[in-house]
Amino acid sequence: MIKVGVVGGTGYTGVELLRLLAGHSQVEVKAITSRAEAGVRVADHFPSLRGRYDLAFTDPASAPLKGCDCIFFATPNGVAMSQVRPLLDTGARIVDFSADFRLKDRTTWEKWYKVTHASPELLPEAVYGLPEINREKIRKARLVANPGCYATAVQLALLPLVETQHVDHAHLIADAKSGASGAGRKAETELLYSEVTDNFKAYAVKGHRHHPEILESLASLETASGRKLGLTFVPHMVPMVRGILATVYARITSDTDFQALYEKRFAKEPFVDVLPAGSQPETRWVRGTNQVRMAVHRPLDAQTLVVLAVEDNLVKGAAGQAVQNMNLMFGFPETEGLQQLAVVP
Amino acid sequence: MIKVGVVGGTGYTGVELLRLLAGHSQVEVKAITSRAEAGVRVADHFPSLRGRYDLAFTDPASAPLKGCDCIFFATPNGVAMSQVRPLLDTGARIVDFSADFRLKDRTTWEKWYKVTHASPELLPEAVYGLPEINREKIRKARLVANPGCYATAVQLALLPLVETQHVDHAHLIADAKSGASGAGRKAETELLYSEVTDNFKAYAVKGHRHHPEILESLASLETASGRKLGLTFVPHMVPMVRGILATVYARITSDTDFQALYEKRFAKEPFVDVLPAGSQPETRWVRGTNQVRMAVHRPLDAQTLVVLAVEDNLVKGAAGQAVQNMNLMFGFPETEGLQQLAVVP
Amino acid sequence: MIKVGVVGGTGYTGVELLRLLAGHSQVEVKAITSRAEAGVRVADHFPSLRGRYDLAFTDPASAPLKGCDCIFFATPNGVAMSQVRPLLDTGARIVDFSADFRLKDRTTWEKWYKVTHASPELLPEAVYGLPEINREKIRKARLVANPGCYATAVQLALLPLVETQHVDHAHLIADAKSGASGAGRKAETELLYSEVTDNFKAYAVKGHRHHPEILESLASLETASGRKLGLTFVPHMVPMVRGILATVYARITSDTDFQALYEKRFAKEPFVDVLPAGSQPETRWVRGTNQVRMAVHRPLDAQTLVVLAVEDNLVKGAAGQAVQNMNLMFGFPETEGLQQLAVVP
Amino acid sequence: MIKVGVVGGTGYTGVELLRLLAGHSQVEVKAITSRAEAGVRVADHFPSLRGRYDLAFTDPASAPLKGCDCIFFATPNGVAMSQVRPLLDTGARIVDFSADFRLKDRTTWEKWYKVTHASPELLPEAVYGLPEINREKIRKARLVANPGCYATAVQLALLPLVETQHVDHAHLIADAKSGASGAGRKAETELLYSEVTDNFKAYAVKGHRHHPEILESLASLETASGRKLGLTFVPHMVPMVRGILATVYARITSDTDFQALYEKRFAKEPFVDVLPAGSQPETRWVRGTNQVRMAVHRPLDAQTLVVLAVEDNLVKGAAGQAVQNMNLMFGFPETEGLQQLAVVP
Repeated sequence: MIKVGVVGGTGYTGVELLRLLAGHSQVEVKAITSRAEAGVRVADHFPSLRGRYDLAFTDPASAPLKGCDCIFFATPNGVAMSQVRPLLDTGARIVDFSADFRLKDRTTWEKWYKVTHASPELLPEAVYGLPEINREKIRKARLVANPGCYATAVQLALLPLVETQHVDHAHLIADAKSGASGAGRKAETELLYSEVTDNFKAYAVKGHRHHPEILESLASLETASGRKLGLTFVPHMVPMVRGILATVYARITSDTDFQALYEKRFAKEPFVDVLPAGSQPETRWVRGTNQVRMAVHRPLDAQTLVVLAVEDNLVKGAAGQAVQNMNLMFGFPETEGLQQLAVVP
Repeated sequence: MIKVGVVGGTGYTGVELLRLLAGHSQVEVKAITSRAEAGVRVADHFPSLRGRYDLAFTDPASAPLKGCDCIFFATPNGVAMSQVRPLLDTGARIVDFSADFRLKDRTTWEKWYKVTHASPELLPEAVYGLPEINREKIRKARLVANPGCYATAVQLALLPLVETQHVDHAHLIADAKSGASGAGRKAETELLYSEVTDNFKAYAVKGHRHHPEILESLASLETASGRKLGLTFVPHMVPMVRGILATVYARITSDTDFQALYEKRFAKEPFVDVLPAGSQPETRWVRGTNQVRMAVHRPLDAQTLVVLAVEDNLVKGAAGQAVQNMNLMFGFPETEGLQQLAVVP
Repeated sequence: MIKVGVVGGTGYTGVELLRLLAGHSQVEVKAITSRAEAGVRVADHFPSLRGRYDLAFTDPASAPLKGCDCIFFATPNGVAMSQVRPLLDTGARIVDFSADFRLKDRTTWEKWYKVTHASPELLPEAVYGLPEINREKIRKARLVANPGCYATAVQLALLPLVETQHVDHAHLIADAKSGASGAGRKAETELLYSEVTDNFKAYAVKGHRHHPEILESLASLETASGRKLGLTFVPHMVPMVRGILATVYARITSDTDFQALYEKRFAKEPFVDVLPAGSQPETRWVRGTNQVRMAVHRPLDAQTLVVLAVEDNLVKGAAGQAVQNMNLMFGFPETEGLQQLAVVP
Repeated sequence: MIKVGVVGGTGYTGVELLRLLAGHSQVEVKAITSRAEAGVRVADHFPSLRGRYDLAFTDPASAPLKGCDCIFFATPNGVAMSQVRPLLDTGARIVDFSADFRLKDRTTWEKWYKVTHASPELLPEAVYGLPEINREKIRKARLVANPGCYATAVQLALLPLVETQHVDHAHLIADAKSGASGAGRKAETELLYSEVTDNFKAYAVKGHRHHPEILESLASLETASGRKLGLTFVPHMVPMVRGILATVYARITSDTDFQALYEKRFAKEPFVDVLPAGSQPETRWVRGTNQVRMAVHRPLDAQTLVVLAVEDNLVKGAAGQAVQNMNLMFGFPETEGLQQLAVVP
């Protein structure tokens, strides 16, 4: 049993983390901080948690996180990088949901996030928390950068391709679609119900912040080859709450049994499910769960491979993957607290 | 550990039951029957169950239910009444999701369901499975009639009023609103996405089948008084999947502290949560859970009491209540397998 | 052909008004003001208007409204009452979408809107713009207070009842349900897509601002009788964009042919459609149109009358009714510019 | 003023056609046929048409179409090919919404539609009704094959690329997303509200019937070059009613000003709107209208061009394009009856 703290528990990834931790046998949530909601009972803010959380939000300034073994930062970009250092010094281990520690390359990070990084000295130590790539490093990490939601789905869909030489790595395409919860619980006009529902659009077509994250992480897998990874990544907004579908296109350069390639690569992964050939995964099949389900297709034009991958952006794309990382860091079974079945319909 | 069978597991209440049973520590699902899908793996029909159910649907004719301790009928009206007798004879105990055994009065039943009842001799024995009214009878029952979804929400909202003398019992109004999953997984034009979404309507205004069920059950609570219970019940279809909100109106005849009345009545109920005064419950607060949450209001016109009650029609309104009834019947803790938190957002 | 100005055209009622005016043969839109968007082309703000509006938003301070014959205020409460006087002095006639001039009783207004009224001297002159009650007064008015969306649907549903003596006027109930666009285009957390969709709730149960508006307007119809009108009004939020369904309950005290009563009362009304007996109107049947469609029912409990009325809250509940009022004020055919058919599905 | 008949007016494209024809100044609808609904008043079937259509559906066998100048077939695939010949013989001109006459190549048609073509002799005469390619042929045609909804959006997005030599024609990708109304008003389980909403998926990944239609039509534009057009086309189902967004990817082989290329190509097209550089079109911007709006992008990876095109699948993708074709065939202004503004929000 470990003591857990949550920084910034008032957003969608926060309430999802609290839902998952309530069903985890090895943790006790000791503190949930929020400057804006300090003093408010968590279950009054999120009535879905009534009967399971007696805590109130506490002001982060009152040091409620002292003594926690594991601290989750479910905060916007820019918060964790200013606050993790003293917490690490108390011996706590940290999983940060934000982008603050996702890139090794500080220059790239500052270009995309348009601020000076507050703790650049921690960048080399931080581990990119995608267990399917970095499981062993995560086990030993003090500071884990939880991947972005799109970044998780796109990387897992591309992983077997980037690790081998069967497609053109220089011209990969990821046409990704996400539910609105991925944009967070922010009071912005463009996220209003009447703007999002019964509507569909692409956004951030010029460049999305998960792009450099995907490229840096995948490029690390193929340094030996010296080739240049190229990716066109276009995100779209779907009028639904949760879920990402990434449709990945790659030009085949050297034939192989792609179904077998994927099945073999993910055979031992507890949260990646390669579906039978011909499957067309739906986002609801993973709603509320930490699963990624994917399918491999070769449509009529036999030279182009199509991979479809679905995840719940708030679970495997955020809070669930954070719990998976915590499980690895503390030696718990990797699936502890993450065995929910999808709520369908 | 008991052996469980599910008859008719291909609809929405069926898949929800399987989701809940997968997390129940005391049951082993031995058979899931379906004539139409016999031979198909359950997890192929419902990919959300992949990795947790290895069973295939079996034809009910091949007697797969033999040896089951508890059998759930998640079938349309008219099926259970023809099939339960031989199963009861094997010693199995049965929870029927349909309306077949919900009314004691056969004449009323046949009037509303427009067929001859196939097992009228079982009607006296069948217990109406609303634990908040019939807990002790359910514990001993062989055959439990699981209540209708609307009927559960409306009765719980009215219960403290009908058991006391503070409002006019003869002119109660229940304006109820339900998500589309309540209509089942039927291929009907009026249930199509493009018909239901971005739309709102009342239906069955002339009379809904849950009406006699509510009246008979509530009337049993006030036989002593000899008064006549009157209820106007208008159901509406909400463009959402799960959830019922019942807005109940009652004219106050004798003042009292209604908040206290409700809190006291449900103080020991594990699945009824009387919210603080002034609350306005939302259906998503109980999505995927067995909770009913309710609030008591006295708006400007001080003579009319307004009670708001929310439930998930597939859980407390169907599969969850069925598991609750099973727990009572077999002596398990009443909340076993039913402690999910709502998936929000 | 008249010259029209629009004050505050950046919200949902504003863009809907512009859509309707683009199809009106007798108006030329000369100015659309917005402090926040001054200088921005209207069609850049609302790309749905591309090709039809060349205007840019202008700052209201630069007096662009001078010379307009008719000015619409599509602004939040509190704006029109401070700005209409000098515009009336130019000879313009005004339709105000807000609540500023809806009540004759200043004390009641200030109690509900919690500010001091800026132009109380205009309250006696302002005409409540519900043509089905005040058609002749509207024709001559300089200043029309366009009714609230709920208020329109609820009053029309109650009108034949309040004008006659067949039901108990003291205990009317209006259980109303509205799409999210009724709350306006405001960046508030509770209006986010992920909060509203797949969810249902009541709100403002303690008291909604349309309540006094309905009561004052309807009470004026029955002053002779000296009875006290009583109404319990509970609004609900439906996960859809447009549409209101009001379900009205009234206890019958003196029997009559209610279907005939309604048909006769609205026989000459171009925008009120009394449906055949047994109908169950759907909000999409009037989506994008100025129609109200209603149905009269007497369910099982024969003592309670149920009336169902649907409208599009942005059309008959706002911009369409405003155009209808303009048509009356300027002697145009009442239906000019308002003959759209609903977009279904 | 011409006389118009509609065959099969009970589906989504049928009701949309009736909505558009009600606002067309040059047509009189004389007959609407439906075997299943013969005798039912059209406005009872679609209450949104109340007050504008007095007709009842007539049985096609009773020859109600005699004397019509223009007949629309809003029927499933396989109907028109059996019925158009005698109607053509009466002198009527026909617009067929189905796929029956979309392909010149009978073998390809029979391969994809899996039946023998009933009127192969009409295939050479039929004109593929995409005005942006075949305007002059449409003017003279007796029989117009109205294009598929996806086919319209994808072709228009690709048109300037296929007509020039700036991208690799052999490896085009169209990742297309459609609302559920594109699947029609069919009572199928997978189209139910509870299956479609809050969900996203790809479908027909192995091959969609609009694929050969796109290829044959576009290939006709580049016969001179002798190159082979290659297209990977993956359709997806969006939980919304109307709208298609096609995201098209093409590898740039020879640089040019693509924004200018698109603007020039569509400069005179009344229903194609090339948006300013950097735009991200939304499906609701064209909801209920005959417009296609598109934007041209070159994201970070400068070698891949991304084109975004939106349409309303029931208007420009079906009924609106049919009216546009009728306008061309009968010498009416091309935009007559098609000047609606989008209903937003």
